[in-house]
Amino acid sequence: MIYTSEAIESVIESLSALPTIGRKTAQRLTLHLLRQPKEDVEKLANALLTMKEKVRYCSQCCNLTESDPCNVCTSAKRNRSLICVVEDPSDLFAIERTNEYFGLYHVLHGALNPLDGIGPNELKIKELLLRLDEGHTGESAQEIILAMNPNVEGEVTTQYLVKLLKPLGVKVSRLARGIPMGSDLEFADEATVSRALQGRVEA
Amino acid sequence: MIYTSEAIESVIESLSALPTIGRKTAQRLTLHLLRQPKEDVEKLANALLTMKEKVRYCSQCCNLTESDPCNVCTSAKRNRSLICVVEDPSDLFAIERTNEYFGLYHVLHGALNPLDGIGPNELKIKELLLRLDEGHTGESAQEIILAMNPNVEGEVTTQYLVKLLKPLGVKVSRLARGIPMGSDLEFADEATVSRALQGRVEA
Repeated sequence: MIYTSEAIESVIESLSALPTIGRKTAQRLTLHLLRQPKEDVEKLANALLTMKEKVRYCSQCCNLTESDPCNVCTSAKRNRSLICVVEDPSDLFAIERTNEYFGLYHVLHGALNPLDGIGPNELKIKELLLRLDEGHTGESAQEIILAMNPNVEGEVTTQYLVKLLKPLGVKVSRLARGIPMGSDLEFADEATVSRALQGRVEA
Repeated sequence: MIYTSEAIESVIESLSALPTIGRKTAQRLTLHLLRQPKEDVEKLANALLTMKEKVRYCSQCCNLTESDPCNVCTSAKRNRSLICVVEDPSDLFAIERTNEYFGLYHVLHGALNPLDGIGPNELKIKELLLRLDEGHTGESAQEIILAMNPNVEGEVTTQYLVKLLKPLGVKVSRLARGIPMGSDLEFADEATVSRALQGRVEA
């Protein structure tokens, strides 16, 4: 046995099961935690337990929340005629950080990926359609913004949702593609420049 | 508020306090943990609590242990005339992984670094001297192997210990410096090649 304590081994094992954390990093983190005050480690452990116990999906937007419906869905300041559809909660956080979007959200929890066995039933698409059913919710979304990631799975999901939503008579839009702010035209890849050209707007 | 749950925010905060884990990584890890089965997250949380509760320093070698003295110090298979002095528990693990050292250890928990205020009193040097005091322990170490890291702090610590230990009449050795296995002479730095030349052995 290399480690002189099973408790240490057990923490290293659990940490190295996390993505991007290998065994060496897990060992380093564990030794760091051992040097920290007891309260700090207890805080982390209790935060993990609390989070796992309290956090669930919002019954309306499927985002992670402690209270159902979530803060965004219940907020009076939100524009209820706009719904932004994202793949994951982290995408929602990215949009919230702009402080420029004040509509509602819908989290799909993934993107269509037939090779990995992820079809429409694996995503929260049924829940989205239910929200658009006015008779059911008493609300009416005027515009759906599709904010999928700019990769193959995201594109496929976008196309699928456009086909599904357009017939419902709701306006469907998608995020603009173009040169990112602060970058150089010189170093942008061809696909990005091509999309920026196609999507050019009047100056 | 960007996050829709204080529990999530609290986990992200605790994780991003760990070394090499920034806020974005902490967010990714937290969302990953939320997708994991409840048992896995509880296992991690409980492992952290158990570790922090049970693990302390071995009263003999100052290594991390659950039982005092530790498994290495109590093992009958260990050569009690050899003590290998290392800076940190992770260095001990590195030597154990070779499966070629069967002596005892002594963990200093750091290296001399006057700029950071780490002097001899901050390290477990007193404890090492106490172990070498035969009248006190009833044992007699024949050789002390200094296995500090090959950097300035490690060198200073080695020099300090050599001065301290030599007068006690015990044999003091240090790890060989040279070209690491599997590397190219062409790409080795000058200091390493120079040490390898100085430390050349008969073929």
